[in-house]
Amino acid sequence: MKRLFTHTRILTMTEEVAPSKTQAMLVENDKIAWIGPEEEAPMADEIVDLRGRLMMPGWINTHGHATMTLLRSFADDIPLKTWLEKYMWPIEARFGAEQVHWGTMLAATEMVRCGTTCFADMYDHMDGVAEVVQESGLRASLCRGVIGLGSQEERDWKRKEAYQFAKDWHGRADGRITTMMSPHAPYTCPPDYIEEIVADAEELKLPIHIHLAETKGEVEGHIETYGMRPVKHLQLLGVFNRPTLIAHAVHVTEEEMEILLQHDVKISHNPGSNLKLGSGIAPVPRMLAKGLRPSLGTDGAASNNNLDIMEEVRLAALIHKGSTMNPEVIPAWTALQMGTSYGAEALFLDHEIGTLEVGKMADFITLDLEKAHLRPAHDLISLLVYSASREDIQDVYINGRPLMRNKELLTIDEERVLFEADRTFQAVAP
Amino acid sequence: MKRLFTHTRILTMTEEVAPSKTQAMLVENDKIAWIGPEEEAPMADEIVDLRGRLMMPGWINTHGHATMTLLRSFADDIPLKTWLEKYMWPIEARFGAEQVHWGTMLAATEMVRCGTTCFADMYDHMDGVAEVVQESGLRASLCRGVIGLGSQEERDWKRKEAYQFAKDWHGRADGRITTMMSPHAPYTCPPDYIEEIVADAEELKLPIHIHLAETKGEVEGHIETYGMRPVKHLQLLGVFNRPTLIAHAVHVTEEEMEILLQHDVKISHNPGSNLKLGSGIAPVPRMLAKGLRPSLGTDGAASNNNLDIMEEVRLAALIHKGSTMNPEVIPAWTALQMGTSYGAEALFLDHEIGTLEVGKMADFITLDLEKAHLRPAHDLISLLVYSASREDIQDVYINGRPLMRNKELLTIDEERVLFEADRTFQAVAP
Repeated sequence: MKRLFTHTRILTMTEEVAPSKTQAMLVENDKIAWIGPEEEAPMADEIVDLRGRLMMPGWINTHGHATMTLLRSFADDIPLKTWLEKYMWPIEARFGAEQVHWGTMLAATEMVRCGTTCFADMYDHMDGVAEVVQESGLRASLCRGVIGLGSQEERDWKRKEAYQFAKDWHGRADGRITTMMSPHAPYTCPPDYIEEIVADAEELKLPIHIHLAETKGEVEGHIETYGMRPVKHLQLLGVFNRPTLIAHAVHVTEEEMEILLQHDVKISHNPGSNLKLGSGIAPVPRMLAKGLRPSLGTDGAASNNNLDIMEEVRLAALIHKGSTMNPEVIPAWTALQMGTSYGAEALFLDHEIGTLEVGKMADFITLDLEKAHLRPAHDLISLLVYSASREDIQDVYINGRPLMRNKELLTIDEERVLFEADRTFQAVAP
Repeated sequence: MKRLFTHTRILTMTEEVAPSKTQAMLVENDKIAWIGPEEEAPMADEIVDLRGRLMMPGWINTHGHATMTLLRSFADDIPLKTWLEKYMWPIEARFGAEQVHWGTMLAATEMVRCGTTCFADMYDHMDGVAEVVQESGLRASLCRGVIGLGSQEERDWKRKEAYQFAKDWHGRADGRITTMMSPHAPYTCPPDYIEEIVADAEELKLPIHIHLAETKGEVEGHIETYGMRPVKHLQLLGVFNRPTLIAHAVHVTEEEMEILLQHDVKISHNPGSNLKLGSGIAPVPRMLAKGLRPSLGTDGAASNNNLDIMEEVRLAALIHKGSTMNPEVIPAWTALQMGTSYGAEALFLDHEIGTLEVGKMADFITLDLEKAHLRPAHDLISLLVYSASREDIQDVYINGRPLMRNKELLTIDEERVLFEADRTFQAVAP
């Protein structure tokens, strides 16, 4: 199957150039086969005219908990500890396979509409999440997050479950699913447990995904318990000998950033969630200055409260300018990279996705540019970051397959999802 | 003409209650005549069924420069001084009546689509702006901003022009236009010039609108020139003896906030623009704690880069939690007030708009709630602030007249606006 997409301005994300002329792109089965001027386009089985639209790589969400979409607007504007202990954990303890399925379906629906083509997910009942990925056509990097605070027995079965999930699903769904091993966080996993999970990751040749330095209190507690800051601690435990993706990294020092750089550790910056929970503002301009390449995540919809990476792109471009009083930090182009190519690197998928290049998988979106809020179009890169929003997204393709065309969802029964998400939440409602 | 709007959840913004049941609202000509349960609804000439939608007061944008919409994405990610001197001022000097007309039409188009029903505007060629307000059906508080750095002659004609504009247009367009007097800023107007404009405002019985303490450098310069901070300076010049709206107030001390409170000075907080230009983060939680009621503005689209108050509502709810590391500051309800009822107060129009109450003008919007990103709907107030966006806005009414129904614009020829905005910019392009 060869599909030729014509008359579209193509932002490949390979170099900082706003496309001034329209081009065509040929997709052969699941890969990009050719990009060039219309008049030189090869023959194809189907032509898709994208006049008036911009094409770019799909957004990549590098940290989240899809099931928690069921808890959107459930508890807001309260301190993290109360939020977790009084609201999140009691209701999550009642979640079963039904809640995971429909919560993730609801998240998948929203993510496709937001132009997200690949997402990371850390939760439990992960078989259910993987099934939704398989069914919906999304791409995902999945891990069963484990908390090691319970009995030895509990620790053992959770670790085993995480191992089995990672082993079973890696490479499935036509390669759209990859997996990671995930000790939840240094404050929820004793050191020996983390070492065991690192050994599992080594055996499976898989990366590690872990929460790190989200709040100031968590870092202070870590120093009290272990006599050192958490980055050093994880380094000594050998975590960074595996490819690693850390989520948040709000409270990290210059020295810690050096360690992260030295081990090529990937970072998921979650500005919306960090702001909303009052966790603080991560030192992203310093990270970039050192050569780190932070990606973007929404975190769960319970603390965001949506799954819109375009909003995270804008937040990343805005909040650091304000907090450092420097309008030159995180220019629009860098913010776009954080939402696309740096996201692919963070999930260890940059050989396949993150830019539009011949040989890469055909994961892309289109945006309608014929809107009042996108005029005049002096600079498309700036417009994408500071003026556009998810409402402008028209089409979503993953592995060359359309998941949304002209805002119509093709793999998800949206009416059913909205109904069942409400019903399955009501079944466990307090 | 009596129009009855039925089956809608009505968020009146009079008390912090998310509407759990649908109600009906009767609009008689331009005013709200009745709100209550469907079964008690009075007879009407027309019924509008709003099933599945939320109704609320329209958003109020308390600071901006509509014509600058022509400069959206024209120059970004550069320091303020360069941005102004190298990019904004040279091109703005070439703007004439055509640019003001179509730039403001473009802004009006975007604002209606964003659910803004009333906006403040400070610029020149203001007759052109007022004509667009008259034509489009929007409500606005307008002022000819004057800079007093030129010759005595220039100072005089500008002041005269501002006076004449304010006098001519106040109360026009069926009362949808009100006016203010506007010395641009303490750093662009000598003290005696400010005093003259205050005298004009006294004579016309009109409020004052002025930029204040936007950047740290501006405040430091003020102290150097006048030996005191700008709030004290304006107090001594008698500005605050008139009702006053100040824009930005990023760099104000506790003592300055006390002076503002004492004189009941209104504030327009512009989070998007302040972040993007690297101006800093205004101490909004402290303002609120003192009893000040800051409203929200977008500033011009050249420094935002859109005119979307829902985005400012979300930014206001998020950034202060992050910068103070306190998730309890600016809860969702307060953020909504900043975008609606506090906005009405800031423009001295709270007797007419800002809440939905019998006797007030029928300025309201509706939002479609049947979306994946708005489910589950545990808390409508939280959803509006943290999850919804302008794409959810369906209908816009001002003075009881529909400007947008089911996303269709009824008073603006959008295709023409997009075309003419591009053309008039090209006519003066560098």
